[in-house]
Amino acid sequence: MTDSLPPSPISCDLDLARDGAQHGFLRLPWSRDDSAWGAVMIPISVIRNGAGPTALLTAGNHGDEYEGLIALHDLAATLDPAQITGRIIILPAMNAPAFRAGTRTSPIDGGNLNRLFPGRPDGTPTQKIADYVTRHLLPLADCVLDFHSGGRTLDFLPLAACHILPDKALEARCREAVAAFGAPYALQMIEMDAVGMFDTTAEAMGKTFVTTELGGAGTATPRSIAIAKRGLRGFLAQAGILAGDEGATTQAAWPETIWLDMPDGDCFLVSEEEGLIEPLVTLGDPVMRGDVVARIYPFGRSGRMPLSCHARRDGIVMARHVPGLVKPGDCIAVFAVPVS
Amino acid sequence: MTDSLPPSPISCDLDLARDGAQHGFLRLPWSRDDSAWGAVMIPISVIRNGAGPTALLTAGNHGDEYEGLIALHDLAATLDPAQITGRIIILPAMNAPAFRAGTRTSPIDGGNLNRLFPGRPDGTPTQKIADYVTRHLLPLADCVLDFHSGGRTLDFLPLAACHILPDKALEARCREAVAAFGAPYALQMIEMDAVGMFDTTAEAMGKTFVTTELGGAGTATPRSIAIAKRGLRGFLAQAGILAGDEGATTQAAWPETIWLDMPDGDCFLVSEEEGLIEPLVTLGDPVMRGDVVARIYPFGRSGRMPLSCHARRDGIVMARHVPGLVKPGDCIAVFAVPVS
Amino acid sequence: MTDSLPPSPISCDLDLARDGAQHGFLRLPWSRDDSAWGAVMIPISVIRNGAGPTALLTAGNHGDEYEGLIALHDLAATLDPAQITGRIIILPAMNAPAFRAGTRTSPIDGGNLNRLFPGRPDGTPTQKIADYVTRHLLPLADCVLDFHSGGRTLDFLPLAACHILPDKALEARCREAVAAFGAPYALQMIEMDAVGMFDTTAEAMGKTFVTTELGGAGTATPRSIAIAKRGLRGFLAQAGILAGDEGATTQAAWPETIWLDMPDGDCFLVSEEEGLIEPLVTLGDPVMRGDVVARIYPFGRSGRMPLSCHARRDGIVMARHVPGLVKPGDCIAVFAVPVS
Amino acid sequence: MTDSLPPSPISCDLDLARDGAQHGFLRLPWSRDDSAWGAVMIPISVIRNGAGPTALLTAGNHGDEYEGLIALHDLAATLDPAQITGRIIILPAMNAPAFRAGTRTSPIDGGNLNRLFPGRPDGTPTQKIADYVTRHLLPLADCVLDFHSGGRTLDFLPLAACHILPDKALEARCREAVAAFGAPYALQMIEMDAVGMFDTTAEAMGKTFVTTELGGAGTATPRSIAIAKRGLRGFLAQAGILAGDEGATTQAAWPETIWLDMPDGDCFLVSEEEGLIEPLVTLGDPVMRGDVVARIYPFGRSGRMPLSCHARRDGIVMARHVPGLVKPGDCIAVFAVPVS
Amino acid sequence: MTDSLPPSPISCDLDLARDGAQHGFLRLPWSRDDSAWGAVMIPISVIRNGAGPTALLTAGNHGDEYEGLIALHDLAATLDPAQITGRIIILPAMNAPAFRAGTRTSPIDGGNLNRLFPGRPDGTPTQKIADYVTRHLLPLADCVLDFHSGGRTLDFLPLAACHILPDKALEARCREAVAAFGAPYALQMIEMDAVGMFDTTAEAMGKTFVTTELGGAGTATPRSIAIAKRGLRGFLAQAGILAGDEGATTQAAWPETIWLDMPDGDCFLVSEEEGLIEPLVTLGDPVMRGDVVARIYPFGRSGRMPLSCHARRDGIVMARHVPGLVKPGDCIAVFAVPVS
Amino acid sequence: MTDSLPPSPISCDLDLARDGAQHGFLRLPWSRDDSAWGAVMIPISVIRNGAGPTALLTAGNHGDEYEGLIALHDLAATLDPAQITGRIIILPAMNAPAFRAGTRTSPIDGGNLNRLFPGRPDGTPTQKIADYVTRHLLPLADCVLDFHSGGRTLDFLPLAACHILPDKALEARCREAVAAFGAPYALQMIEMDAVGMFDTTAEAMGKTFVTTELGGAGTATPRSIAIAKRGLRGFLAQAGILAGDEGATTQAAWPETIWLDMPDGDCFLVSEEEGLIEPLVTLGDPVMRGDVVARIYPFGRSGRMPLSCHARRDGIVMARHVPGLVKPGDCIAVFAVPVS
Repeated sequence: MTDSLPPSPISCDLDLARDGAQHGFLRLPWSRDDSAWGAVMIPISVIRNGAGPTALLTAGNHGDEYEGLIALHDLAATLDPAQITGRIIILPAMNAPAFRAGTRTSPIDGGNLNRLFPGRPDGTPTQKIADYVTRHLLPLADCVLDFHSGGRTLDFLPLAACHILPDKALEARCREAVAAFGAPYALQMIEMDAVGMFDTTAEAMGKTFVTTELGGAGTATPRSIAIAKRGLRGFLAQAGILAGDEGATTQAAWPETIWLDMPDGDCFLVSEEEGLIEPLVTLGDPVMRGDVVARIYPFGRSGRMPLSCHARRDGIVMARHVPGLVKPGDCIAVFAVPVS
Repeated sequence: MTDSLPPSPISCDLDLARDGAQHGFLRLPWSRDDSAWGAVMIPISVIRNGAGPTALLTAGNHGDEYEGLIALHDLAATLDPAQITGRIIILPAMNAPAFRAGTRTSPIDGGNLNRLFPGRPDGTPTQKIADYVTRHLLPLADCVLDFHSGGRTLDFLPLAACHILPDKALEARCREAVAAFGAPYALQMIEMDAVGMFDTTAEAMGKTFVTTELGGAGTATPRSIAIAKRGLRGFLAQAGILAGDEGATTQAAWPETIWLDMPDGDCFLVSEEEGLIEPLVTLGDPVMRGDVVARIYPFGRSGRMPLSCHARRDGIVMARHVPGLVKPGDCIAVFAVPVS
Repeated sequence: MTDSLPPSPISCDLDLARDGAQHGFLRLPWSRDDSAWGAVMIPISVIRNGAGPTALLTAGNHGDEYEGLIALHDLAATLDPAQITGRIIILPAMNAPAFRAGTRTSPIDGGNLNRLFPGRPDGTPTQKIADYVTRHLLPLADCVLDFHSGGRTLDFLPLAACHILPDKALEARCREAVAAFGAPYALQMIEMDAVGMFDTTAEAMGKTFVTTELGGAGTATPRSIAIAKRGLRGFLAQAGILAGDEGATTQAAWPETIWLDMPDGDCFLVSEEEGLIEPLVTLGDPVMRGDVVARIYPFGRSGRMPLSCHARRDGIVMARHVPGLVKPGDCIAVFAVPVS
Repeated sequence: MTDSLPPSPISCDLDLARDGAQHGFLRLPWSRDDSAWGAVMIPISVIRNGAGPTALLTAGNHGDEYEGLIALHDLAATLDPAQITGRIIILPAMNAPAFRAGTRTSPIDGGNLNRLFPGRPDGTPTQKIADYVTRHLLPLADCVLDFHSGGRTLDFLPLAACHILPDKALEARCREAVAAFGAPYALQMIEMDAVGMFDTTAEAMGKTFVTTELGGAGTATPRSIAIAKRGLRGFLAQAGILAGDEGATTQAAWPETIWLDMPDGDCFLVSEEEGLIEPLVTLGDPVMRGDVVARIYPFGRSGRMPLSCHARRDGIVMARHVPGLVKPGDCIAVFAVPVS
Repeated sequence: MTDSLPPSPISCDLDLARDGAQHGFLRLPWSRDDSAWGAVMIPISVIRNGAGPTALLTAGNHGDEYEGLIALHDLAATLDPAQITGRIIILPAMNAPAFRAGTRTSPIDGGNLNRLFPGRPDGTPTQKIADYVTRHLLPLADCVLDFHSGGRTLDFLPLAACHILPDKALEARCREAVAAFGAPYALQMIEMDAVGMFDTTAEAMGKTFVTTELGGAGTATPRSIAIAKRGLRGFLAQAGILAGDEGATTQAAWPETIWLDMPDGDCFLVSEEEGLIEPLVTLGDPVMRGDVVARIYPFGRSGRMPLSCHARRDGIVMARHVPGLVKPGDCIAVFAVPVS
Repeated sequence: MTDSLPPSPISCDLDLARDGAQHGFLRLPWSRDDSAWGAVMIPISVIRNGAGPTALLTAGNHGDEYEGLIALHDLAATLDPAQITGRIIILPAMNAPAFRAGTRTSPIDGGNLNRLFPGRPDGTPTQKIADYVTRHLLPLADCVLDFHSGGRTLDFLPLAACHILPDKALEARCREAVAAFGAPYALQMIEMDAVGMFDTTAEAMGKTFVTTELGGAGTATPRSIAIAKRGLRGFLAQAGILAGDEGATTQAAWPETIWLDMPDGDCFLVSEEEGLIEPLVTLGDPVMRGDVVARIYPFGRSGRMPLSCHARRDGIVMARHVPGLVKPGDCIAVFAVPVS
């Protein structure tokens, strides 16, 4: 389908086929009131050492999810090409305007990059980024690691994830890559609303694809950053790009990854009300169906009893709402079930 | 000085001298484009049972600090007047517009309530709130508990705090009230920039005053809320308002409160740069002068080494910067010294 | 055409086939900066009593048109299923974000819902609402009543309306439904710019369709609300859903509905200037071609004579511009001709 | 007090002492980002014919109240100096930036001009306007007519008003001027929150002062404009400036003015809730204490019963809330008592 | 392709086939919150005198480029039909909302008109303008002159330009028209990113097309306006519409037009950094590859050496960045090579 | 007066009394929604070499005036302490937030720094900057050079300026310093609205004070920067701080400075209209009283004749309006008279 599209207006100032470490920009023309012939500059690094597999490593798909942004900036600044076999392409801030603004979506066009794949070369700036990645970078890659966390409004148990796929061989490869990432938790999921996702686009092209949710609340911690850095090296080692002794073994792995499952839509607890939220459970806590997991104090007069929010299934708290206020439609919590 | 001021335009629809539990509003006239004869409605509860001391309990001084907001809404909704002796006046959302917006300062006038005391009756809406509290509520109070935490941009070790004061008898009373609050940490401090603070205004009127920093990051957790609720009851019990068996003993106290000191300005680590911040230490971690406690990746090209931020003194991490991006002038961390 | 579209991302938490009164939400996933996994919650009520025709009742197509919003909230709260035969599906605030904001269009995406039918499941949130109504609710309906009035910038004589249609049998049914609504005025019109309208989409599916213009100026009055409530019951009675003695007879009908016609484009008087507008005629006033119906004082120096705006045809004033200022392109007035 | 103030930065390009009709500007320097050496231009007209009293006529004190704006633009454009004795100074848009924006308050500085008298020459632009009027125009005037109506958010019975004053001779003069204005209703009131009002400043200087509330809803109608124009001429005739046969007699007066009284604070009905408002009474309707005068449907789920708002005293509806949505603190209605 | 599109919603109130001078509007319906049935009004003038060629003259394609806006307003106000043979259609402010706002793009929808050709009748307002011009005005024209300059963020040597085209006969006609314009500089260029441009659309229809860059910096000067006015008359004379003695000879032509060439992408110098920019060369200056043409002082601490920006090829400065600050992706300078 | 003020909250991290070159920050605490304990960081450099006079050099008083910003950043980065005798204190971006935003006034509080002197330590951030400069830096200085130009909305002939002062000895010193600056033009003026200016505050403390207007239009050119750099060195040489051979002689001076006078208020030409402006004269052009110096095309219909703007006195054009659109109250041009 994409073959009939016009060429991408984005240009890259690196030679992706050259050995060594290079750092430059994808340049996306963006004519606007404050820069008639301006451009969006998206940093890119490529590190190559001879023949071998190619990994595409991305963060900043959402601009306020920080573990991957830090781990990939660190990798780009410190990795010696001699340590690898093959090629690593790094987009540490894939939606660069969102990263710069500290927001999930692009301040330029409101675009949520992970809902706009495979993109369009003649669309919005965010669609143009998706299109360039789809048509120019994904075809070069054998495996893809796309870092996420909860952003400013959600917080997650640290996990790596892959999808249940029709292509079972691909599914197995993805699952192995998740295991190699070695996060405290792992999740294998069916995506319910997969339209526009980077994941779906890459998987449809047969690429080994790993995504993560490593924390959130609009911040990163030494622990969540360590999980990202360690997982990144485990992923590259498993892909055969990073020598083993530069990879997983350089940092202590978690003793055991707990695999999680999300059996149905009752995993999601959504608010119908607005007000001040009092959470009664937090990440990792076990809950039983019917438990009161949060209370909401409506705005207005004090002295009124809060509304109770009940869990709709048994499980553990995998994700939680962060802001102190809640709006109708907000996700209060996500519950998952450990796989025995 | 305040005696020559014009009367406050704020009216209260409760009779603060009446026994029982009442819930109503402070009504602050606010004529504006979208409501010609509109008003700001500030919820207030008063719970009284005969003669006895009066406690003024406030939260929402900053609108994005949630532990106190929750604990006071809970108290107003559940406290039976029969449980107390004296009077409790509760302003669960003192800067109501800021609370409603989920912001530190008021969306109406940009006012930071805790920099505008003692306020003005003919000033901005936020100044009018400060003035009403100063001239109409503080005079009724024997003791004051003002809840804070770090808000959306800072996170704190959970602590209650009082000031080093010229009036040593008052200082001792405040210190006892902090101890009764029973948080995991306690801080006795000299305020460097005390102009406009609620604390200063209340202390100058001889009131026992306790403030807190109970967490932050724009959220609250079951643990931080429990500290707030337990501390609130400990404070009221120590003030002689809440019977002991309704107070501290109803919830398990922390085994031991650790007192902290902030000896000098080197406790504050301020960023001179902007970029993506990688924290290397977190709350409670010990640091030595010269340790690299954070790294900053400047915006722009990837592949560059980050800038290092060094601790300027020994101590433990008492507060930390939350957002994943940092700006020049942002507080990266605050260090404190445990008092042996 | 719509059959090849992807499924709607909207889910409904009601069982539309069940007897009784149910109240819930259409849930439209809306990932955004302030709620990563958030949703738009659109209230929906369904009231059913056995077999029989289905009426789809909608208001809040534009968010600032209040008579229908009130009449449908009232109906949903008070109608006993035993009073009806068949089913009533109520969307009291079809463009819920616009209703919540008090604006014509959606604050989320700027969408004017009544220009976006039949919608798209992969478009903007407003397009997704249109698509869900088109593909999931319209097919269930026999007749549709969509409430409008002038909103904040126009004011109308209270009228119900239908279109002149190629399908004369459908046109006759619509005309009878307008008569049953029983507003003081009725209008049968040719829509000049019908692209994207709910009306056109429903009529193309063969549904009896009635729309209204019941007042405006961003407000509702006891009289205009009474017209809406009475018309609503008349419409349902005529459709065979509401028993006659629960319908039109419960409230005094207008003695006579005056039918209006809009013969040509000269019915619209458009301003070419900006300034302070002085209306010389008001709703229902008769005008002759060439009459000065308004004067405009340009901004700037006082002491200048105003510009005169002349009626371009004979008629009565059916709609008028509300705001005290006028801009180039604003509709100053609409004239219609009573049908003898 | 004002004598020690620095000079006003505002200059007037008219000679207010010259005979004839002149039209020009008050020029208020306003340096800003989009005009380094810019100015606010406030239109002013002066019409003089020999010795005699001076009337100061103002509208646009609030920028969205249109009857006076129209009547004064009309007067400035059409009055022949030969028709008068003395002098008329016209500020048709006193808060010119608010008028230009169609808002109650100034878009420049948020200033509500009628809360900022007597103003400051070194304050905000709105304060500078108040100061210039206070120190340069009020001293020239014998009588002042300041036009108001309800603006975009309130609607009033058409009335002229004066205050109950300590100086009973002045009060009598004001009352006579209100009578000469000849609106359908008249109101004599005690101002509860008079700080910053133009009224108070003018009355304190001993000027005959009349204010009005002539309608509202952000619009004007032929009837409300006629009341304004007729009242204006009646006022000028009573002041001895306009010859009788040019004054009140040129337009049919209302047969009888109904005087109203506002005995206490229960005249104001204020909302404590937010939601969709259904008014049950309208302007001029009689109400009894306890009557349900409005219902409020909270946002969210449909199918819930609305909240009822009860009148707190007997009276007639003198003013009503306009927008279809209501917020906590909004004035729902004002009740007054006809004086027998 | 465009034949299957729905009809344009834009109407024109002029008869383009009538002799004489007419001035009116293109009316684009634009329903919105502040005008439910509002419209965008785009001024249009047509001046016709019998049979003969038609020129379409446009300015305000970008709203902040002023020479053409002035020259076409002047022409529309002063041209006597008797002076011409044929027809001139003038759109002095093609993107009228952008012109009114003083911005490159439309404040309504963010549309950059010159990236949205050939437009859509069912798209955004800016797309609707492009569609109307493409389908209703371009077919009437023999030749098109579209005025541009650098806008607020770029400044250019004054030049007229045409494209290198596959149709060499058309290319020759365009080149002759550029020569007739007679600006100090002329440019023949290959457009690298021609998608959406007015130029491309007109050329594809076989129209003689001339564009210009006549200055910039968000302003116009007597000299740049004179170049526009003289070029406009030269263009019309060469097209056989304006008699020679009314055309080029009425104003002194530049003695010689210097033709420029842009051989490759190295003509563009783009910033990778943000900061305070110190330009070292200006318009018309010669540069050699490697010359430092600008320095950038990064924000933050003073006392640091600036970054140097080097020319990537020999040439003269044809365009320069205007604002005192520079952002990553901004065009610092454009270099061109005089054709010997 | 200022002695009774509270201490400034601003701290400086440099030792201004130390020899050598130091670069650091003034730190202004600024608590806000996006940084609870944030600060404004204002860069400062001090270069000292033993005893001698002190010069205070400031730019960025207005944030969009670039010549001084560039010259002072250059000086701070390149000046060797050995080249001077005494001390130079450099504030290259005095209103740092305005500089960072590229705006005349502060984006934080709207403050125009040059209207807020002498400032307040308990006021807005901009007032706090003024207060710190007044109370902590001005007392250290013997002479002050404050760089200005026209900013984004005005453009000036390049000039240095001083005031006519009551203290004739000070006036003479200022005049000598202006002469030493050696700009193409010089201006000695009476400030009409001197309230709040840095100039007035410094002069009242007896400091030699020079200000400039070196260009504008929101940009800087190689020529205007050269004037700034040369003038800066001439000023320092005349002050006895910079050795002569490092000063004026290092760059070619203008052969002759032309002194200008502004005799009266007719020097300013102010627009009463809004529209598209066509300037007929430019900087340096001679004009005679009554000359048409600009034309204004009102918005709306094309084909109308423009309004003419006439010079109100003889002179040369010293400053001009930059944007292509003009608003009522904008300064169209400033005329000055060369002193023979």
